Amino acid sequence: MEQKSTINFGAGPAKLPQSVLLQAQKELVNFNDVGISVLEMSHRSSDFNKILNKTESLMRELLCIPDNYKVMFMQGGGSGQFSAVPLNLIGLKEDRCADYIVTGTWSEKAAKEAEKYGKVNIVHPKLDRYTKIPDPSSWTLNPSASYVYYCCNETVHGVEYNFIPETNGVVLVSDMSSNFLSRPVDVSKFGLIFAGAQKNVGCAGVTVVIVREDLLGHTLKECPIVLNYKVQAESNSLYNTPPCFSIYIMCLVLEWIKNNGGSVAMENLNHQKSSLIYDIINNSDGFYVCPVDKPSRSRMNIPFRLGTEEGDEALEKMFLAGAAKRGMISLKGHRSVGGIRASLYNAVTLGDTEALAAFMKEFKKEHM
Amino acid sequence: MEQKSTINFGAGPAKLPQSVLLQAQKELVNFNDVGISVLEMSHRSSDFNKILNKTESLMRELLCIPDNYKVMFMQGGGSGQFSAVPLNLIGLKEDRCADYIVTGTWSEKAAKEAEKYGKVNIVHPKLDRYTKIPDPSSWTLNPSASYVYYCCNETVHGVEYNFIPETNGVVLVSDMSSNFLSRPVDVSKFGLIFAGAQKNVGCAGVTVVIVREDLLGHTLKECPIVLNYKVQAESNSLYNTPPCFSIYIMCLVLEWIKNNGGSVAMENLNHQKSSLIYDIINNSDGFYVCPVDKPSRSRMNIPFRLGTEEGDEALEKMFLAGAAKRGMISLKGHRSVGGIRASLYNAVTLGDTEALAAFMKEFKKEHM
Repeated sequence: MEQKSTINFGAGPAKLPQSVLLQAQKELVNFNDVGISVLEMSHRSSDFNKILNKTESLMRELLCIPDNYKVMFMQGGGSGQFSAVPLNLIGLKEDRCADYIVTGTWSEKAAKEAEKYGKVNIVHPKLDRYTKIPDPSSWTLNPSASYVYYCCNETVHGVEYNFIPETNGVVLVSDMSSNFLSRPVDVSKFGLIFAGAQKNVGCAGVTVVIVREDLLGHTLKECPIVLNYKVQAESNSLYNTPPCFSIYIMCLVLEWIKNNGGSVAMENLNHQKSSLIYDIINNSDGFYVCPVDKPSRSRMNIPFRLGTEEGDEALEKMFLAGAAKRGMISLKGHRSVGGIRASLYNAVTLGDTEALAAFMKEFKKEHM
Repeated sequence: MEQKSTINFGAGPAKLPQSVLLQAQKELVNFNDVGISVLEMSHRSSDFNKILNKTESLMRELLCIPDNYKVMFMQGGGSGQFSAVPLNLIGLKEDRCADYIVTGTWSEKAAKEAEKYGKVNIVHPKLDRYTKIPDPSSWTLNPSASYVYYCCNETVHGVEYNFIPETNGVVLVSDMSSNFLSRPVDVSKFGLIFAGAQKNVGCAGVTVVIVREDLLGHTLKECPIVLNYKVQAESNSLYNTPPCFSIYIMCLVLEWIKNNGGSVAMENLNHQKSSLIYDIINNSDGFYVCPVDKPSRSRMNIPFRLGTEEGDEALEKMFLAGAAKRGMISLKGHRSVGGIRASLYNAVTLGDTEALAAFMKEFKKEHM
């Protein structure tokens, strides 16, 4: 496959595999010879049902999802799930409380949203900066919490869990939006996993929710029906019109993951890519600075500053301009933290990453 | 433009203009020479912002939306709005009650959902069958209702309003999912209009909400943040990642509407198309039976039975098989009512409709 001249390091919506785009393009006007586009297809047609079922079965296969879990395709994004999770699960126990581990922007937002629906306990002292996972020995978990929530990879701050939190039997919920299917995961350890598609498994508009069956049916009465897991699970994600085209793109991406070795191969690739960039940062004598503690560094999103810990903004501007000249886009850090951020999701190739690495070395040589 | 051999009469997701599909196909891998697909584009990039702003300005132009209205692009479909409307507007007055006019499946579902958030008053005696709009003189409107709600076109039953309800100053809310931009509408008469895109203005995954500014800010505290109109309006639909590709497709469809004469031209075309089919039904000596009262018949969705008022199912099966042979798909009535339904949204051409008309005449001749 020819390398595109633009290299997209965006944090999401993010790069898709070139073969997926080419197939979507080929099929756009006339899908599978049925004479119409997926964009025009009734969600109740047998053709669309084949797409939906194939997406689910690929997902089950790639993540070895046990039979007692439902897989749903919902609208509203990860932010919609910040509400849906407490609306559906905080009523699991009478106390209506939930434990949140807050390690970045996204878990912070999720905890704030959950306060609308019950009592929220942040299990550790508030962090000054989001640069690490607080040591589990410092967590105060509430045994009567309905669930323990964490965000497995914080896109903005580049903080990722390399372990599954121990909850002593309390239901575990994880936002895996930005590292979903970037490595294998033991689904059976979780009550619920959700992920927006637009990082590793597709385009914006659809969110995967994987939930253990026995947790369904405790929804608060104020839950909007489209966010009701039981309703969506029982209707196979077809309670109302789903985001058909986004599901179709996800199907193509899951096929691509399968054809490229599955979650284990993705993990190896993602380790290799992120190591390439972290090695340059670690060996730059402080020219590149990643604020995140080493064990919590994300393989997906690598935030770094140039020149000093606080970042030399003029230098960073030059870096971004130089990258843009080489076709590398969306390397600017999140507006809330500044600096540079390289996102290396599944579809970002080793070649893409090597191009960034080469530029980083060259830029350092010129400007240090 | 060459006629495709498949003619899609689906009720939604529904046919898109062929030129829209061809443009989307052309641009799928490399949009506007920026080197990436819209599917991969950051929602905060200037390229996507151009798409978003263009979509909004086309919408404003085509519907002459006054400046004191906000236009939002949301997820969750019409069914999501069944919750969002009461969550955002039922608190407009202290009594937290709302009036609903129930003329079919969709307004019935909306009324039921609203009961979660306040008192719901159905303004007329319950209808036995959804075959008409109850006479406004029979409505008991509550002057202290926060809003009056109706569904402008009922997709399942083929019932459409040809007038705007008079509410004596109470805020008027309309679900226009299935006749949005099929004709001009005086937006200034409404507090809020919403519409799923997948009928007349795009593909599934995005819902347009047009709301008068002064109604914002009365959201109930249990409203999920992604459904909060004030939050979405203030962030220009970018509170969280929007369904980017669905918005892009809407942009292309709105351009197509504009290039084809705007809402007035759509109205003329839709009148012409629906008259063609209704004339055949009316002049079929009872072979084709449309149960809907003439003044309330939908120009968008034409439900009819064959043989008798209750429908001769064997004959209807033959009709669907004969249609399928001619490439005409998705003519089966909604599973809750049976029979046949022809949906004639904007993108269904006069030629498509003439093909259906010709088949209906031929089938009647053979089987009456």
